[in-house]
Amino acid sequence: MSSWEPVGGGVCAPRGFLAGAAAMGIKNPAVKRLDCALIFSECPASVAGVFTTNRFKAAPVLWDQGVCVRGAARAVFANSGNANACTGERGILDAQETAARVADRMSIPVTEVCVASTGVIGVPLPMDRILAGVDACAAALSASGSGDAARAIMTTDTVPKEFAAEISLGGKTVRIGAIAKGAGMIAPNMATMLCFITTDAAVPPDLLRRMLADAVDVSFNCICVDNDMSTNDTVLFFANGASGVEITDPNSAAGRIFAEGLKQICITTAQALVRDGEGATRFVTIEVTGASDNQAARTVAQSVARSMLCKTAFHGGDPNWGRIACAVGYSGIHFEPDRISVRIGDVTVMAEGLPTDYREEDAAAAMKERDIHIGITLGDGPGRAVCWTSDLSQEYIRINADYRT
Amino acid sequence: MSSWEPVGGGVCAPRGFLAGAAAMGIKNPAVKRLDCALIFSECPASVAGVFTTNRFKAAPVLWDQGVCVRGAARAVFANSGNANACTGERGILDAQETAARVADRMSIPVTEVCVASTGVIGVPLPMDRILAGVDACAAALSASGSGDAARAIMTTDTVPKEFAAEISLGGKTVRIGAIAKGAGMIAPNMATMLCFITTDAAVPPDLLRRMLADAVDVSFNCICVDNDMSTNDTVLFFANGASGVEITDPNSAAGRIFAEGLKQICITTAQALVRDGEGATRFVTIEVTGASDNQAARTVAQSVARSMLCKTAFHGGDPNWGRIACAVGYSGIHFEPDRISVRIGDVTVMAEGLPTDYREEDAAAAMKERDIHIGITLGDGPGRAVCWTSDLSQEYIRINADYRT
Repeated sequence: MSSWEPVGGGVCAPRGFLAGAAAMGIKNPAVKRLDCALIFSECPASVAGVFTTNRFKAAPVLWDQGVCVRGAARAVFANSGNANACTGERGILDAQETAARVADRMSIPVTEVCVASTGVIGVPLPMDRILAGVDACAAALSASGSGDAARAIMTTDTVPKEFAAEISLGGKTVRIGAIAKGAGMIAPNMATMLCFITTDAAVPPDLLRRMLADAVDVSFNCICVDNDMSTNDTVLFFANGASGVEITDPNSAAGRIFAEGLKQICITTAQALVRDGEGATRFVTIEVTGASDNQAARTVAQSVARSMLCKTAFHGGDPNWGRIACAVGYSGIHFEPDRISVRIGDVTVMAEGLPTDYREEDAAAAMKERDIHIGITLGDGPGRAVCWTSDLSQEYIRINADYRT
Repeated sequence: MSSWEPVGGGVCAPRGFLAGAAAMGIKNPAVKRLDCALIFSECPASVAGVFTTNRFKAAPVLWDQGVCVRGAARAVFANSGNANACTGERGILDAQETAARVADRMSIPVTEVCVASTGVIGVPLPMDRILAGVDACAAALSASGSGDAARAIMTTDTVPKEFAAEISLGGKTVRIGAIAKGAGMIAPNMATMLCFITTDAAVPPDLLRRMLADAVDVSFNCICVDNDMSTNDTVLFFANGASGVEITDPNSAAGRIFAEGLKQICITTAQALVRDGEGATRFVTIEVTGASDNQAARTVAQSVARSMLCKTAFHGGDPNWGRIACAVGYSGIHFEPDRISVRIGDVTVMAEGLPTDYREEDAAAAMKERDIHIGITLGDGPGRAVCWTSDLSQEYIRINADYRT
């Protein structure tokens, strides 16, 4: 069996997708950086979405939820610099008007246009610049526009996130591509993140939805930067069938291979968000095994991934396993304290609930890596889970103490 | 009706209580600062305790739970510099041996001695220095020893916490006193904190337990520094009856007055912990009203109090109410977004789910105070709650990135 191979091109790697971006000064008219992006499918496409569960949902999220219920969409327009959240009825109308402008420019039904916004909360969208941005992005559409689109949706991100992979299925080549943004407000169960995924496979909306939900569950729902869940979190997945490959049965060989490729793209993208987390200097994998079930394992992993004391210890490169054990202990999950073991990299620092006679310099060395692996075994149950988190640095505080002003 | 008046003397303000401290180099033999403390009642006393819910409970917590079930104790010996947590059977034996030494020196049953430890996890207690510390503290016992005891239990605290108050009840004077420590690992539902409370009222153990649980619920369970709940959290309350005042009926006038005084002492102490939170530069009160019930209000208040993005905004003095609304939105509590209002000090920044036309400089001024008040109204329900939290500063990171080393 062949495997997925990385390719360039981001969301434009799958055939039939174009992207474009423009610099409209959305946040500040005096500062022109790419801040509007449009992704467009030249042929009809199905769409699925996963959205924030915050009770305050931004206007574009409410709009896109409607589009995704119908399951067909050919375009998404996104802006950074303004979240169009907590903007009331006016925000709803602004999202609608933006979608209508895209529909008009691209000659497609307004019901097949998604919109997305990220940035400051509570400020109405500058609609003159947004609508001009739609026009400029439409004019800039090209098969090589993914990189610009990835840059246009960045806020406090320091690098654009753009990935794509391909595989041969039944003699035809299928591709999946993605761009994403999000460096703060990153928590399990979604965050201030936008992710747009495209594929040139044909996948009916119901199946697209199930596959996306499964992939998000093992990727974006397993990451953590600062535990805050935003009003705008959106993952959209477009499938336009331009490859000639149809995926209709999730249990077929092709269905399983495709779902696996989607998961890999989502995991790669999710990890890239953590690596570029605000102020992050380390990438930490928390792996929990031996739990009673997977959900218990995930709860424990997230408890460690969210702990400010663990995250500052990761930052300091301090193998302070006591803080890890402590976070395991207050996770709310039942376990026998005298059966737990903790590993930092290859160094077992705690076994049967007690410190081992590990060498401090070995543990310190494992903790000072750019990529840290923490292994926690709770018992001999079948449950396991992985979470990815960043360290907590003074730079995070600097960024967020005066982000808005 | 008279009211409680602050007095000096801390845990020695109530008659019949003595305290003493000693510098034993528990953490590091080369560094001698006060790190052992003993509080002793000259007459029999009842005792109640509230303890961490962490699955990893430190050995002294396990010991004290046994003492508190029986409900009688005349002494507590505490050390800083070493938590005696994750120390297995040896830790249990060490706690027991420490209590036995106190019992021997003070000529009381070992079952009436509590022990408490705070500091590094996973390192056995240096028993030679601990036992010598018991002797030194016993020799140092005096009615003016509360201040030294308060200093001896400090770890990253920058100021000792010591409070006492008195009231006249039926012609007699009753006093309540407390000392406490804890600046990091502070979360709702207890933290790396120790708090010892004394009173010269006579209160039977059952009633003492109920009164302490009620007081902890509205004080220590409403504070938040960094959301980490430690293995050692302990609040102990001793009542020795030396005032001649007996409290037996919680619904009597005296019972209500006494319970109220206990709550006030606990709230004052809890707030002092937040004010001295690691790296804290501001003290933030989060008040939620209009919720469906008190628990819902508390969940919302804690969601804001725990949010790293809100806490960094508090630090920066940035009236970023979008982050507050966002944290309300992901609290998991149901509310109608278009009914919510948010106030920073006296400035209503959000009403009916939308930003008001408040003046930015007014909100910024309210957010730059040393004491910030955030008011959140969810609807018109009867539920209300208050939480106290600190800001999140670069100094917090500095303290915790290399606390152990």
